[in-house]
Amino acid sequence: MEPVKIGLLGLGTVGGGTVSVLTRNAEEIARRAGRGIVISHAAAKEYNRALKGLNQIGRITDDPYAVVNDPDVEIVVELIGGYAPALELVLKAIENDKHVVTANKALIATHGNEIFAAAQKKGVTVAFEAAVAGGIPIIKAMREGLAANQIEWVAGIINGTSNFILTEMKDKNRDFEEVLREAQARGYAEANPAFDIEGIDAAHKLTILASIAFGIPLQFDKVYKEGITSIERQDVSYAAELGYKIKLLGIARKSDSGIELRVHPTLISEVRLIANVDGVMNAVLVKGDAVGPTLYYGAGAGAEPTASAVIADIVDVVRALTTDPENRVPHLAFQPKAMANIAIKPMEEIETGYYLRIMAVDKPGVLSDVTTILGKQGISIEAVIQKEPDEDATLVPVILLTQKVVEKKMNEAIRKIEALDTVGAKVRRIRVETLA
Amino acid sequence: MEPVKIGLLGLGTVGGGTVSVLTRNAEEIARRAGRGIVISHAAAKEYNRALKGLNQIGRITDDPYAVVNDPDVEIVVELIGGYAPALELVLKAIENDKHVVTANKALIATHGNEIFAAAQKKGVTVAFEAAVAGGIPIIKAMREGLAANQIEWVAGIINGTSNFILTEMKDKNRDFEEVLREAQARGYAEANPAFDIEGIDAAHKLTILASIAFGIPLQFDKVYKEGITSIERQDVSYAAELGYKIKLLGIARKSDSGIELRVHPTLISEVRLIANVDGVMNAVLVKGDAVGPTLYYGAGAGAEPTASAVIADIVDVVRALTTDPENRVPHLAFQPKAMANIAIKPMEEIETGYYLRIMAVDKPGVLSDVTTILGKQGISIEAVIQKEPDEDATLVPVILLTQKVVEKKMNEAIRKIEALDTVGAKVRRIRVETLA
Repeated sequence: MEPVKIGLLGLGTVGGGTVSVLTRNAEEIARRAGRGIVISHAAAKEYNRALKGLNQIGRITDDPYAVVNDPDVEIVVELIGGYAPALELVLKAIENDKHVVTANKALIATHGNEIFAAAQKKGVTVAFEAAVAGGIPIIKAMREGLAANQIEWVAGIINGTSNFILTEMKDKNRDFEEVLREAQARGYAEANPAFDIEGIDAAHKLTILASIAFGIPLQFDKVYKEGITSIERQDVSYAAELGYKIKLLGIARKSDSGIELRVHPTLISEVRLIANVDGVMNAVLVKGDAVGPTLYYGAGAGAEPTASAVIADIVDVVRALTTDPENRVPHLAFQPKAMANIAIKPMEEIETGYYLRIMAVDKPGVLSDVTTILGKQGISIEAVIQKEPDEDATLVPVILLTQKVVEKKMNEAIRKIEALDTVGAKVRRIRVETLA
Repeated sequence: MEPVKIGLLGLGTVGGGTVSVLTRNAEEIARRAGRGIVISHAAAKEYNRALKGLNQIGRITDDPYAVVNDPDVEIVVELIGGYAPALELVLKAIENDKHVVTANKALIATHGNEIFAAAQKKGVTVAFEAAVAGGIPIIKAMREGLAANQIEWVAGIINGTSNFILTEMKDKNRDFEEVLREAQARGYAEANPAFDIEGIDAAHKLTILASIAFGIPLQFDKVYKEGITSIERQDVSYAAELGYKIKLLGIARKSDSGIELRVHPTLISEVRLIANVDGVMNAVLVKGDAVGPTLYYGAGAGAEPTASAVIADIVDVVRALTTDPENRVPHLAFQPKAMANIAIKPMEEIETGYYLRIMAVDKPGVLSDVTTILGKQGISIEAVIQKEPDEDATLVPVILLTQKVVEKKMNEAIRKIEALDTVGAKVRRIRVETLA
């Protein structure tokens, strides 16, 4: 059979990785796919001309529209990233009856509904395994491997940069700012790291995971986003004293009252497997009603791990080329007509445990005032640590771990605690999850 | 579209779980598959008549041949287990142009080559996700999700019973025999637990994993099989002192000199994620050249986790019903014509580190004799623990951790150590893996 012709947009980190892996593993991939895969046309403004495999590419241009309009190209692989011109190029490729493979999480999370509707109309596939958790085949696992289950919840460490920073803060007792600078120097974090450390990138990925878990439209705007910028070294230490690690989790959970969609720093018991996913690695924990908890772990970014997912998608699309479009795996796991419109819960109505750090004057009665306030809101305390004051400190930290409570009650309690004369600074609050 | 008609063989644990989950999640599954799934005909000698969903089954018989010969049945789901009559039934179903879904690891590991050849000839699919690691979608992940990679090695905790026993021995300092009896009482281990604790069940699963990893025929006979029956409580403790856990691992590794296929107790550093997979849970660690290490974790057995995998396979087959057979995912990941015949390495040529427990007379010079023997075989020592003698013990344990060495050199060294006058009992040897 003739090799399949790919049109490649972008020859940066992931594009270069895709060319490398397709070249190096051409034989192994064809042994699986039953058909060769060639890049017949690629577009890039700038690229590393020493990249191995470039000579295997039919033609390289600087005009991406030439690629999406090339009648020979069967599958367009979009690895430019960002919104413009990526969105226009993807829609143009679909209009031209081409299948699309993309690693663009921001694009899928914010424009996926439009893109998939266009693809559905044209009977083409848009594959996006590389958009979530890099090389981990999490989209395939959830969409196909767990097809028998009602997914109850998903919780993921899906931003490697944040996880690297939190791991270094814990293991080496370092400050956030210092580790962030190192992450930037090592190339883990961008010069503008906001997407990573403010939880935006994780929210993009969580949007996609929630959609394929529950069969709901992509709703990035409704995700609660809280990053790791206000996590202090001392909170990482106190959490450890209590037997917990702090991780930036993306959590999607379905209940009778709606769907929770939230990204925030979270305390997780250190005996849980996911609490021990360290450094730049990613992991996604999925709870299905039949299968129970399953966990998927691997590299969430990087040239070749991401290329691994891109190429797996290409092989899938190659296999589907002769399939009746009606029978393909649906883009968002559920058939378009079977998508549900379930309300996303406001953050105030979500129930979690809490870690509280209260900076208080070191005198009798303070703890009693605090526990009285918590008690009036029906909040039970699970553990307390009271620290000795430093020599010249006027305030001492009181650390509390609470049982589960609805967030609005905790907000009310914190407001009252902060109003106490004996409490000096803003109460530091981090949510706690049992993931059970 | 008409619902797909399933013929179900077996209504035991997994069969019952499959009926339950198909009934409970009928709507969610149809939302994904785009088509209903009904069990039109089932066969079982005995079954629980209170099982929910039985009334949804078209007809229940005690003759499995009536099911595989039923012209209305499109997919036969074999959940009887064992070799006879399962093999004959599966081959008959294929002959009758039916697709097959099976959870039967023993059957696939030992008769898979014959079964897949018959299926290939008839253009039907035989799906077997449930045969390895229960509900974890590991077959799909490796066969499709990692299609871009050259798989370098696979290492799995793929027998829940053994893992439960080893976990209890470690956490509660209990003896093997005692925990085994508890596992039998709890229903984790069969009355005849040999398949589990002798490594046979893990070897069945490893056979399948190795085949889809490397594109080699199924070769169960060539797997080295060593169970956990000779692991003593003290070895679990000494390993912990050295920072290791003992796990029953199935390991398949490809190198220039051939393929390693082995199941044996293994020391793994406790800082590794897979070392912390406890109780009856399973996990498979896969190293791909592009993606790096990825890990898949979940329930490896049980009614509903296994049903989860069975039903995912049914949904996949339903989707493939209209596909040109040439373009389906190949049974063993690689196209039948592209299977490779790579030699399986003899155990003697395999390189690992070693944990040695030597029971020796407590007098000077013994350690020096031992290290001299090891040194002559070119074996480097990484750590030593020498224990104080118990009051009335004539022999004291000397624990050694060695660097990597070819197994035949270690065998030679152990033979010489056991011949020393000062060494009292057989040397206890457990292999060590870095999994890097």
